[in-house]
Amino acid sequence: MCQDGCMRLAELSARSGLSIATIKYYVRAGLLPPGTMQSSTWAAYDDSHPRRLRLVRALTEVAGLSLDEVRCVVDAVDASRSNHEARGAAQWLLSPPLPREPSADSLGRVEELLRRHDWNLDAEGPHRRSLAVALDTLDALGFAATDEILDTYARALEPVAEMEVARVTAETDAFVAAERLVIGTLLYEPVLLTLRRMAHEVASARA
Amino acid sequence: MCQDGCMRLAELSARSGLSIATIKYYVRAGLLPPGTMQSSTWAAYDDSHPRRLRLVRALTEVAGLSLDEVRCVVDAVDASRSNHEARGAAQWLLSPPLPREPSADSLGRVEELLRRHDWNLDAEGPHRRSLAVALDTLDALGFAATDEILDTYARALEPVAEMEVARVTAETDAFVAAERLVIGTLLYEPVLLTLRRMAHEVASARA
Repeated sequence: MCQDGCMRLAELSARSGLSIATIKYYVRAGLLPPGTMQSSTWAAYDDSHPRRLRLVRALTEVAGLSLDEVRCVVDAVDASRSNHEARGAAQWLLSPPLPREPSADSLGRVEELLRRHDWNLDAEGPHRRSLAVALDTLDALGFAATDEILDTYARALEPVAEMEVARVTAETDAFVAAERLVIGTLLYEPVLLTLRRMAHEVASARA
Repeated sequence: MCQDGCMRLAELSARSGLSIATIKYYVRAGLLPPGTMQSSTWAAYDDSHPRRLRLVRALTEVAGLSLDEVRCVVDAVDASRSNHEARGAAQWLLSPPLPREPSADSLGRVEELLRRHDWNLDAEGPHRRSLAVALDTLDALGFAATDEILDTYARALEPVAEMEVARVTAETDAFVAAERLVIGTLLYEPVLLTLRRMAHEVASARA
């Protein structure tokens, strides 16, 4: 039976802005569960389908992931038992691959930084190693990051992240929460970086 | 006469890590002033030459600018009457070209933001328009930035920029100051963005 909120493929296409051919392709690629067959001629889709299509679009069009990478994200969101896990799954998979292994020295400095700020990060996540590789690059170019710089950044970003996560945790649906965090993380990066350059100009004029 | 600190081309090459052919090419391209001819067979270079070569390398290898763009930056640094102007010249030219014109609405929101935080930016600079274009993109994707978000970012970035500019203004040489700001701006972007993702994970776990 078609329940409340159920729709045909044509309506799912209209609501998601994706062509029927694209939606069928996503179903074959494992990115979207098939609809429930209501007869031999039509399948019913429910409210979860447009939500998932929005996440797929965000990951392909905004994050620039390949369909294989998108499947990893949606599988991880499906498998996660909490909104926090779903957000982590989506966010971790956005981390760019590391160009090389970080040095033990930089990894140690990252651990000390996390301890100083009481930041408990999952040991499996990519962020420690990403940061350590960035520190290695700065070392190699003669612009080593001091603890003063790292601590100033960390203190500045705590209220930023709290505000951003509070806006996302209001979402009860794991897919919508993951989508909002993915889009928010990526789309707001240029805003943050431009404001940093503005603040440089202001601080330079005052100096 | 060759004064203190003067050197031959071979020494300039050794000190800068660039080949003699590359240095000669930079002189022909107008990126580096020629040395002072000491006789028909050798020219003397002074301390300003290695400094300028470091800036050229930073702009090409770190910022990824073309040689034409590098010439614009070094000409602007040459023409500026103060360290603040030199830093501004280098930084403005790093701003990516705008994909389209910003909307009047977003430009107005940027002006209000600057007024709220008492940020006086040069009217000729690129940052207002860059930020307005980023706001337009967020609007179009249904993730419009609220004033709460922008104000939180601006407040967080003030101490970051003050610390970063204080490290640069200690430099008395305009070329070295411009180089440090260019490299610092670009190289620390991944550090800032990775720490933001770490802070998201921490805030998400606490939520």
